[in-house]
Amino acid sequence: MESLRIIDIAGTAAFSIAGAFAAMEKRLDIFGIFIIAFVTALGGGTLRDVLIGNVPVSWMLNLSSGLIVLLSTIAALSFTRVIKNYHKILLLFDSIGLGFFTVYGIQTGIALDLHPIICVTLGTISACFGGVIRDISLNSIPLIFEKEIYATTCIAGGVIFFLLLKLELPKLPIEIICLSTIVIFRLLSVKYDWRLPVIWKKEEL
Amino acid sequence: MESLRIIDIAGTAAFSIAGAFAAMEKRLDIFGIFIIAFVTALGGGTLRDVLIGNVPVSWMLNLSSGLIVLLSTIAALSFTRVIKNYHKILLLFDSIGLGFFTVYGIQTGIALDLHPIICVTLGTISACFGGVIRDISLNSIPLIFEKEIYATTCIAGGVIFFLLLKLELPKLPIEIICLSTIVIFRLLSVKYDWRLPVIWKKEEL
Amino acid sequence: MESLRIIDIAGTAAFSIAGAFAAMEKRLDIFGIFIIAFVTALGGGTLRDVLIGNVPVSWMLNLSSGLIVLLSTIAALSFTRVIKNYHKILLLFDSIGLGFFTVYGIQTGIALDLHPIICVTLGTISACFGGVIRDISLNSIPLIFEKEIYATTCIAGGVIFFLLLKLELPKLPIEIICLSTIVIFRLLSVKYDWRLPVIWKKEEL
Repeated sequence: MESLRIIDIAGTAAFSIAGAFAAMEKRLDIFGIFIIAFVTALGGGTLRDVLIGNVPVSWMLNLSSGLIVLLSTIAALSFTRVIKNYHKILLLFDSIGLGFFTVYGIQTGIALDLHPIICVTLGTISACFGGVIRDISLNSIPLIFEKEIYATTCIAGGVIFFLLLKLELPKLPIEIICLSTIVIFRLLSVKYDWRLPVIWKKEEL
Repeated sequence: MESLRIIDIAGTAAFSIAGAFAAMEKRLDIFGIFIIAFVTALGGGTLRDVLIGNVPVSWMLNLSSGLIVLLSTIAALSFTRVIKNYHKILLLFDSIGLGFFTVYGIQTGIALDLHPIICVTLGTISACFGGVIRDISLNSIPLIFEKEIYATTCIAGGVIFFLLLKLELPKLPIEIICLSTIVIFRLLSVKYDWRLPVIWKKEEL
Repeated sequence: MESLRIIDIAGTAAFSIAGAFAAMEKRLDIFGIFIIAFVTALGGGTLRDVLIGNVPVSWMLNLSSGLIVLLSTIAALSFTRVIKNYHKILLLFDSIGLGFFTVYGIQTGIALDLHPIICVTLGTISACFGGVIRDISLNSIPLIFEKEIYATTCIAGGVIFFLLLKLELPKLPIEIICLSTIVIFRLLSVKYDWRLPVIWKKEEL
């Protein structure tokens, strides 16, 4: 479907730009920036594909994802200041990417007849683990383990997906509702700085 | 076999709790703690499965491992101080897990008709690489590369496994002897602080 | 072909020794040094194999690679000072390894009928990602993202490979030219300290 394709492109581009900016902050060279953009955008899906045996992984069979990463990286390098000024648009795209990759990952699991919990896990891996690999490569503790409810957003979206599936709704509205929930939840969580509790018992550590 | 199942559960629980404690020390949020517990307990087996092409990996097909990780993480969060007071029991469980995962990994290799050296390698990967992925995720140099003879213990157990196999003993006693050797070796190595030599030639570096 | 085999051995040995030295600098124990040597030499090829589904990965089916790593690590530990004095020979071997692994990775992709861009990517992954995994394990930002044109060298060699293929040259001369280009480019880049530009716009970060 054409609209899904546009959502995929917007998400991949937003993830690539986020990766490129993180790499620029660590002062990598241009090759390093491209690689970090690539793993941020496509690393989660790659890990998902490897874990379920969907190989050669999808970006090897279809060059368009890699091309989107390349163009987004060039854009991030060329228009750094401009793009940063539009950081709200970037956040919107990023949220759309999060929702899209989650929905796509869930469906990969359904196609393999895996348990709903594993499907939600695959959706979350698809959406979040690109960022984890990026942070580990840049020698940081992954952000999603510390400060963001990024992954929680995907899990919540996934739970809604399967609740709606139980109601026997047709697939397209389920996908749209799941994606929208994730986008709205993500935007609200950034606006109001929602966090998961940190269990840090000072006296015991 | 029922007894094997109990050993598996004890090992997975101990690895999860060790992972959860490591994550709490780094002050991760509760989602991060769960993920680190998960990769500590199941990461080694996942890497083994991916390397030999046993996909979808086993925790996707059987939810019980994930459930044990979840319950162990909740226990680690709820009874931190209590569990730490029983650290000797935790060490015992951890040693049992080390032995069990090694034996299980070796048998995966035998089932694929791989060379004994590769089987021992698979056993060691199963038992040790969850901890390696944990340490890399938490931005530390993996403990087993520096201070522990963790991996050496698994390798020693694996060598004994194949020596006994050469003597044409039946499988069950071999497994029990191999697992016990690893448990005893592990407990002794902690008690007496055995280490591998560090080759650090000051003048040359 | 016998000559290819010798090139493979020289490259694996050089990569192992480079890994062992990096691990010694971080004062790992001897097991850690061996593991780091192993992932440096064989990690890139392992990642390639996993991404294309060529499993069990090749070092599990043929022990000779592991044996070369073991012997090289022992050599690195035993003759540290001697080997460092011959660092130019080590650089030559390393460059040969870079070229060989690139050519070998490209051919893996061609055998799967993948797009030339993906074949070059597979060659680069084979040649470079062992070093990336090494650096991440040793808790550093991967060198190739920051300071070296290592990967660029492989990409340049890969492009030449496919340009020559378009000219319908026979395979052997193409391989030799591609490998030689990478070796010469690598040696020149070290001699003259070629680097990729760092896009670091101070005022914007």
